[in-house]
Amino acid sequence: MTDSPLRTLPAQEVAEACARALWDDDLASRALGMVLEEIRPDYARLSMPVRADMVNGHRNCHGGLIFALADSTFAFACNSTNQITVAAAASIDFLSPAKLGDRLIAYGEAQSTAGRTRVYDIRVANQAGQLIALFRGRSHQLKERLIPGLEVAR
Amino acid sequence: MTDSPLRTLPAQEVAEACARALWDDDLASRALGMVLEEIRPDYARLSMPVRADMVNGHRNCHGGLIFALADSTFAFACNSTNQITVAAAASIDFLSPAKLGDRLIAYGEAQSTAGRTRVYDIRVANQAGQLIALFRGRSHQLKERLIPGLEVAR
Amino acid sequence: MTDSPLRTLPAQEVAEACARALWDDDLASRALGMVLEEIRPDYARLSMPVRADMVNGHRNCHGGLIFALADSTFAFACNSTNQITVAAAASIDFLSPAKLGDRLIAYGEAQSTAGRTRVYDIRVANQAGQLIALFRGRSHQLKERLIPGLEVAR
Amino acid sequence: MTDSPLRTLPAQEVAEACARALWDDDLASRALGMVLEEIRPDYARLSMPVRADMVNGHRNCHGGLIFALADSTFAFACNSTNQITVAAAASIDFLSPAKLGDRLIAYGEAQSTAGRTRVYDIRVANQAGQLIALFRGRSHQLKERLIPGLEVAR
Repeated sequence: MTDSPLRTLPAQEVAEACARALWDDDLASRALGMVLEEIRPDYARLSMPVRADMVNGHRNCHGGLIFALADSTFAFACNSTNQITVAAAASIDFLSPAKLGDRLIAYGEAQSTAGRTRVYDIRVANQAGQLIALFRGRSHQLKERLIPGLEVAR
Repeated sequence: MTDSPLRTLPAQEVAEACARALWDDDLASRALGMVLEEIRPDYARLSMPVRADMVNGHRNCHGGLIFALADSTFAFACNSTNQITVAAAASIDFLSPAKLGDRLIAYGEAQSTAGRTRVYDIRVANQAGQLIALFRGRSHQLKERLIPGLEVAR
Repeated sequence: MTDSPLRTLPAQEVAEACARALWDDDLASRALGMVLEEIRPDYARLSMPVRADMVNGHRNCHGGLIFALADSTFAFACNSTNQITVAAAASIDFLSPAKLGDRLIAYGEAQSTAGRTRVYDIRVANQAGQLIALFRGRSHQLKERLIPGLEVAR
Repeated sequence: MTDSPLRTLPAQEVAEACARALWDDDLASRALGMVLEEIRPDYARLSMPVRADMVNGHRNCHGGLIFALADSTFAFACNSTNQITVAAAASIDFLSPAKLGDRLIAYGEAQSTAGRTRVYDIRVANQAGQLIALFRGRSHQLKERLIPGLEVAR
């Protein structure tokens, strides 16, 4: 990695390059039908359809898959500055059920940006704007770059 | 529901009947390859393989799917006494990564049994017994029966 | 309570009346030196000095007392609409230590306002604006009024 | 610190020495009337009376002080192996109110012991054994010793 020629890019372009790198790797989010809608430094927005294989007999989406959408959004947001960042812990409050056929939208950003441990808040809503869940993730930054040799221009 | 002929069964048989009813409905858990390994009143144990469509480029399982396994285990445990119970909130601490090919086992039980709001702790381990995650779920009991007319024998 | 003559007041005046009623009762917050700085419907701001009896040998404030300040702020915010509301659960992320002599400020508001279960986010900062902790509280509204006979004018 | 003559003691004696060192420093826990009842490696038990300055007008203990008792118990448990350990995050579920005159007992232990980030579960009960709250704390071990030069005998 130390041999990589150093490249600098504006923060927004770094965020987009990081998102592409993560997305290529993230088979799980793609298998769940997620779409990356928007990326900015420390912010992400993703959507996911509630499919027939995601619900129970009452046509309510499995809570674990609502969490998975929020968790992916958290991962895209916290890896947007080219520092490899892992989820240490998370909590979710379920406020309304999501139903078969809904399109869920999750978005959120960093609440703290000092230090290597950070907190991100992600909101999950349905296509009508109704709040479905509130997620809070705690991340831990590692020392490695997601894309070796790439730096944010200052 | 008031017309249902009343049936009484021992607590263990009620737990098994509730698990069958939930399982028939739970397309999401089945689509994720989960297996119900054990059910008792206020306790459940489930397993899930880490498949190729559940991992990222580093072959680590998506955290949302580890959560989904714990959340299903929580749902089976808290619906085992024939009272419809919904997840209100949950938190998870990720302690070690789960890898492609692992078989995850999640199990846990009620930590409090007074009142309609209860707390369940679920542990997720891999096939070698290594702790992967700790999950805590907060449930809320509704007044309806999961299987109308069925009561626990006293 | 049903005999109380009905009074209606604008939402802000109801919030202020509720805060006064809570404050008169809240010996614990007063014993900890807290000051109610601002109240609005679904919002509160409180401050607390870090005194010599609140620290350890490194002059860091006990985490439980940082939590207590956030928890009181949560209580004032969620009781500001004259519906008795209790804390069901809460979580806190500690981001920086608070030191002897600091004046902590906690503020926050409702993140969801539908239904009887709501989520409030409270931030705790020091006098320099540095973020000390992030608190998330889950509240449960009871049916009783905090001040019987008082309604918000519509 | 590097000059300290190395002492080795059995794990239980190290836990007791660490508890004494913490206790001498912990003005806040003492000001709240807490008593250290029992210490073992990775386990602690503390008690606290619910005093008149800890309650509201309904004679219920302030939730922040229930949290503070659990948080102190967590701190004693996670500092019992002579590794300085700080609280990174915590959550609490309030299950029953604690009343003026109650004597609260909090106890708990490590749920995971691999790595520098660990999870501790603390239960808070009253003198009748009724469960008041469930607390889960996430700790982070620093590299420094609490008592320089002291090692656990192997």
